[in-house]
Amino acid sequence: MKVHDLTTPALLVDAADLTANLADMAAALPGPRCRPHVKAHKTTALAKLQAAHHPGFTVATIREAEGMVAAGLGDDILLANEVLDARRLGALLDSGDARITLAIDSDETLAAAVAGGIREVVVDVNVGLPRCGVAPEKAGALADRARAAGLTVRGVMGYEGHLMLFPDEAERAKHTEECMAKLLAAHADVGGELISGGGTGTYAVNTWVNEVQAGSYALMDTAYTAAGLPFRQALTVLATVISVSDGWAAADVGLKSLGMDHGNPTVPGGQVWFCSDEHTTFAPAEPVSVGDRIRVLPAHVDPTVALHERMQVVEGEEVVDTWAVDLRGW
Amino acid sequence: MKVHDLTTPALLVDAADLTANLADMAAALPGPRCRPHVKAHKTTALAKLQAAHHPGFTVATIREAEGMVAAGLGDDILLANEVLDARRLGALLDSGDARITLAIDSDETLAAAVAGGIREVVVDVNVGLPRCGVAPEKAGALADRARAAGLTVRGVMGYEGHLMLFPDEAERAKHTEECMAKLLAAHADVGGELISGGGTGTYAVNTWVNEVQAGSYALMDTAYTAAGLPFRQALTVLATVISVSDGWAAADVGLKSLGMDHGNPTVPGGQVWFCSDEHTTFAPAEPVSVGDRIRVLPAHVDPTVALHERMQVVEGEEVVDTWAVDLRGW
Repeated sequence: MKVHDLTTPALLVDAADLTANLADMAAALPGPRCRPHVKAHKTTALAKLQAAHHPGFTVATIREAEGMVAAGLGDDILLANEVLDARRLGALLDSGDARITLAIDSDETLAAAVAGGIREVVVDVNVGLPRCGVAPEKAGALADRARAAGLTVRGVMGYEGHLMLFPDEAERAKHTEECMAKLLAAHADVGGELISGGGTGTYAVNTWVNEVQAGSYALMDTAYTAAGLPFRQALTVLATVISVSDGWAAADVGLKSLGMDHGNPTVPGGQVWFCSDEHTTFAPAEPVSVGDRIRVLPAHVDPTVALHERMQVVEGEEVVDTWAVDLRGW
Repeated sequence: MKVHDLTTPALLVDAADLTANLADMAAALPGPRCRPHVKAHKTTALAKLQAAHHPGFTVATIREAEGMVAAGLGDDILLANEVLDARRLGALLDSGDARITLAIDSDETLAAAVAGGIREVVVDVNVGLPRCGVAPEKAGALADRARAAGLTVRGVMGYEGHLMLFPDEAERAKHTEECMAKLLAAHADVGGELISGGGTGTYAVNTWVNEVQAGSYALMDTAYTAAGLPFRQALTVLATVISVSDGWAAADVGLKSLGMDHGNPTVPGGQVWFCSDEHTTFAPAEPVSVGDRIRVLPAHVDPTVALHERMQVVEGEEVVDTWAVDLRGW
């Protein structure tokens, strides 16, 4: 099938760009030094390619853990998030084919891990992003209570998410060091083999963790590109120009096919005016015609992918594969 | 099942509020004077309730048209958008169970309608929103060409979408009148029984169209509530507080469960700081505990619904029904 034959909107993944991104990350952080985060693509077919480079994965939801195990990718999954009902995770462990490590940051999430049948945890440490994570000075005591409750504590994690899009790499490195000092202090109290953190934005400057939870590097988006990261924009959203007026045109991609929290998408060679549910209105630099196909670059990869049922893998104008975005939902 | 037993995040629809919204719209715009737009909820189970009040529906995508026909709701569907490949719509017509009217605004979309087997169209007129729609003075000639090509032209449509969230109703009414003057001028040239337009934001002030394409009124969101509309906030996203720190808490709803183009969601009794993929960080006014359930109000209903597989219909703390959001995708 040709790209032109696809129904729009359609998620396109450039096979060569994706392959290059995976290889570049594997060269920078080989094997277990990267624990790819599947929340950025929610696609087990893509995760299988990452599994050729890295032995473990990071997930954000129970559904993602279930899907990864079902796809045979459950050898070492870190659910880097807190959950209050871990029973579905315990059931995965009982199936015998999975190793799942769960983040905890409170006595409540510890109790949920125990009640759900979880055996291994990491202590999630607040390193500066106001979200989840126990205060660093309280991490050791929480680990002690987890061990007393029969859990294995594999180490710590801490996500410096507020630094991912810092445009200046030196600034990003300086602040990352400050955040990771907190994580290392917590690790000194907690123990365990895992010091997990980081992401695509800090993969090159976070030299303190022993595994980086990078996800966006595989497909990329305009926000990460603007932050100066070297990975290629492998993901676009194919659109059809459905209307052309004097000074602007409308394409059939909008709020239901593009994550908007990082702002408008980019239309190469055009100026985006605004998006509505099913449309992007843009001023084209060169004349466009009704029926033209364009490839729109999303500003934020993760919520964009979550809006699509499938990705089309393309080589030039050829569609070489179709992947289900099979880890959506909760 | 109780609300507390649901996996979070979960879309909740308050049955009483929804019923009131549907009744209020039906009282204001009975029967064919409202042509409910299903893009706002993408749920045939909800559309069936609207069908008790109104004979026709508006859709934005071919997929929505297909799903509505499959659900037995295809008696009079207006696809209020331009498409370049209408073959799937023609196939629906050939099945014998559907009446589908398609918007056209150019010779290319006219040709696509003919090629796809469409029989009835409306001329989409640009009434001021820079998106789709032919210039009003060119609408009559396009209708003539459509009729010459064998199509039935049922009338005109024009969407004053840029006015929907004007906070002042008098201003909204004044600008709506200006927009609708363009639509009526076009209708004088085009003819046909349909003068279709408007939406939830202008349903009360757009007295020029003979059918209003309102969708958001059924479930509502904080943006429309802020615009002073009388409908009730029937839709919330159920979340679990998964982490509590000194000064803030994190709930398990974020960019993948909330449409963000109208900004942050609202946490009743709290101040939202920011959303990330799976989290909303907020400052609670009263202390909250890990494990608490909260109901978050989305800022924009349409893209929020598009992120969920299902809606839970609730009466108080009881889940009385589960509806598939079955019109997603393209």
